[in-house]
Amino acid sequence: MPKNRLEAFADGIFAIAATLLVLNLTVAGNDLGHELRIIWPGYLAYALSFITIGIIWVNHHTVMHQVAHVDRFFLMVNVLFLMCIAFIPFPTRLLAQYITTSQAEPAALAYGITLTATATFFNVIWRYAATGRRLLRHDADQKAVDGIGRSYLPGPLLYLGATLVALINPLASGALYVAIGLFYVLESSIFGRG
Amino acid sequence: MPKNRLEAFADGIFAIAATLLVLNLTVAGNDLGHELRIIWPGYLAYALSFITIGIIWVNHHTVMHQVAHVDRFFLMVNVLFLMCIAFIPFPTRLLAQYITTSQAEPAALAYGITLTATATFFNVIWRYAATGRRLLRHDADQKAVDGIGRSYLPGPLLYLGATLVALINPLASGALYVAIGLFYVLESSIFGRG
Amino acid sequence: MPKNRLEAFADGIFAIAATLLVLNLTVAGNDLGHELRIIWPGYLAYALSFITIGIIWVNHHTVMHQVAHVDRFFLMVNVLFLMCIAFIPFPTRLLAQYITTSQAEPAALAYGITLTATATFFNVIWRYAATGRRLLRHDADQKAVDGIGRSYLPGPLLYLGATLVALINPLASGALYVAIGLFYVLESSIFGRG
Amino acid sequence: MPKNRLEAFADGIFAIAATLLVLNLTVAGNDLGHELRIIWPGYLAYALSFITIGIIWVNHHTVMHQVAHVDRFFLMVNVLFLMCIAFIPFPTRLLAQYITTSQAEPAALAYGITLTATATFFNVIWRYAATGRRLLRHDADQKAVDGIGRSYLPGPLLYLGATLVALINPLASGALYVAIGLFYVLESSIFGRG
Repeated sequence: MPKNRLEAFADGIFAIAATLLVLNLTVAGNDLGHELRIIWPGYLAYALSFITIGIIWVNHHTVMHQVAHVDRFFLMVNVLFLMCIAFIPFPTRLLAQYITTSQAEPAALAYGITLTATATFFNVIWRYAATGRRLLRHDADQKAVDGIGRSYLPGPLLYLGATLVALINPLASGALYVAIGLFYVLESSIFGRG
Repeated sequence: MPKNRLEAFADGIFAIAATLLVLNLTVAGNDLGHELRIIWPGYLAYALSFITIGIIWVNHHTVMHQVAHVDRFFLMVNVLFLMCIAFIPFPTRLLAQYITTSQAEPAALAYGITLTATATFFNVIWRYAATGRRLLRHDADQKAVDGIGRSYLPGPLLYLGATLVALINPLASGALYVAIGLFYVLESSIFGRG
Repeated sequence: MPKNRLEAFADGIFAIAATLLVLNLTVAGNDLGHELRIIWPGYLAYALSFITIGIIWVNHHTVMHQVAHVDRFFLMVNVLFLMCIAFIPFPTRLLAQYITTSQAEPAALAYGITLTATATFFNVIWRYAATGRRLLRHDADQKAVDGIGRSYLPGPLLYLGATLVALINPLASGALYVAIGLFYVLESSIFGRG
Repeated sequence: MPKNRLEAFADGIFAIAATLLVLNLTVAGNDLGHELRIIWPGYLAYALSFITIGIIWVNHHTVMHQVAHVDRFFLMVNVLFLMCIAFIPFPTRLLAQYITTSQAEPAALAYGITLTATATFFNVIWRYAATGRRLLRHDADQKAVDGIGRSYLPGPLLYLGATLVALINPLASGALYVAIGLFYVLESSIFGRG
């Protein structure tokens, strides 16, 4: 079973989920200049989720590069993972609209739960492919394979931690989501240059 | 005529239809925590339709893997099939919003009719390709071909049955849609591991 | 310059424009069963535009199959053509919502103008590629090339005619759009089988 | 690391951002013929942004044609660039709805800032790939490489200039966006024919 259609389907979901984020931005237009300034959490949430989806896309890229073939179980786990990716625009809208209001806590929780689930499924994808080198290419370097596994492990814990912070301080939780995103951007870029 | 552009177009429709499902989720934000809990049918309908589309995508994958070339009639039947796939977000929204209300019956009927039509067109696609091995690869294993045909046959009947149940009990009908989806997930995963 | 990215971009636009059509369907949900019946022009317009986009996609497929390479002028004409394709969901919504009301005339005109422009740009694409075999493959059969040119020629005229009918009778104009679509479906399928 | 998945992801974002533009067009339907005429800025903004995205897509095409491989930093800059592309439907809606109103200034500013950022990131993409021929193909013609670099340089300045004009006269700024688009269309087409 060739892996290229999974890549096409996944790239489609990544691209569409990222592009739908822009529909979250709305204004009424009574005092447009003022409104465009006060919806800054909307821009931030847009950038946060777009870049987060972008990083996960780059990482999915890395995983699929090591994978030689796919089986139906792997496809099914990918469907569940992509279901989380495609869900991201909804909590992003909540974060954008409510993080500066009294409803910030459920918004920050919804965002965190979604990202925690996404990162968890991503780890399941990798474990399933890498355990016993089940789906890997014959020439996949074992050291690189181990490195990939290690680098993905903290994701769910980081997001779970940031989610729990929302119960105490939703704004701090939002700041942590941004910090996790920035960390991955820097880690990716430096890793890519090195 | 190469088959890769049909795959690209189909993967696009699958990916977009699945990703548009998230637009069905909306809240007013007066008591966000409460609202996010009471829209649980929305999450369930999202997951149900996303996974259903995912399974159909995996199966389309399987069909196209056996197909060597496509003709214009095959393309046209695929367009009609994809028209059903792209329609799914609409009855999904109905199911999400009305399954727990007095308007549950038409919502459950609309969902079931759409899925029955989708499964029927999917069977037409396969019959057209497989009858007399019209579009199949020369090296397609006849036993695998027969197995595929048998495994797709119950789909329309299962969905038709669940649709008719909506006339008596729409909630039971909704539960049957979930059960059919779960059945296919398990069947796919176990089949994929075996 | 390779042609595969034009195909990917075009397939993306075709798939997204076709899938966005479903967003045109909305209900208020007071008497859902009744509402789902009275929005029948919505289903018809959805099917009409989806199938029309599907046919144009099949034909674009045919054109690109004969094309060996692309130049920047060809890309630019394709962008203008795809701009028309991506516009189709808007007049489709107008047709769906107003064809049975007193506002039917502008709705039918908008639909017809869009399809006439689309068919015209499609002819420009083909003429540019085929004139003097500018972008065609060396092994493209001249008889097939001439046949393609002839079969695309009536499109703009048919749509222009149906558009002008809207000035007298918008409903008849809508029926003609359906008839043109059906004609192409049958012509495609029979041509494909022969 | 293969470049084809970046192309697939980018083509997806380009195609979706361009196709989502049509959702900006809405009418209330009281006097449809009149409304369809007075929303002309909506059509113009649609065409402007669609063609602008189309031109950037063609140019991204040109860049990727010269690129042999990608690294993680290059992927990350592309993600930031695509984040700007996917943002375009929002300021396009602002331009369409407010350019003929008293709120024209912030709308024209938002559009210009977005396009300036897009053009800037596009230059970063090219500089990163081309400096010291870092990511280029071995057989990339140095003269063509230099020509590409020169042709992309004015973009950010042109858009920045048009943006600043919005502070004095928003309508003139809108006209300049159209002029820049037309300039690139002509430049592309003539360049492509020559």
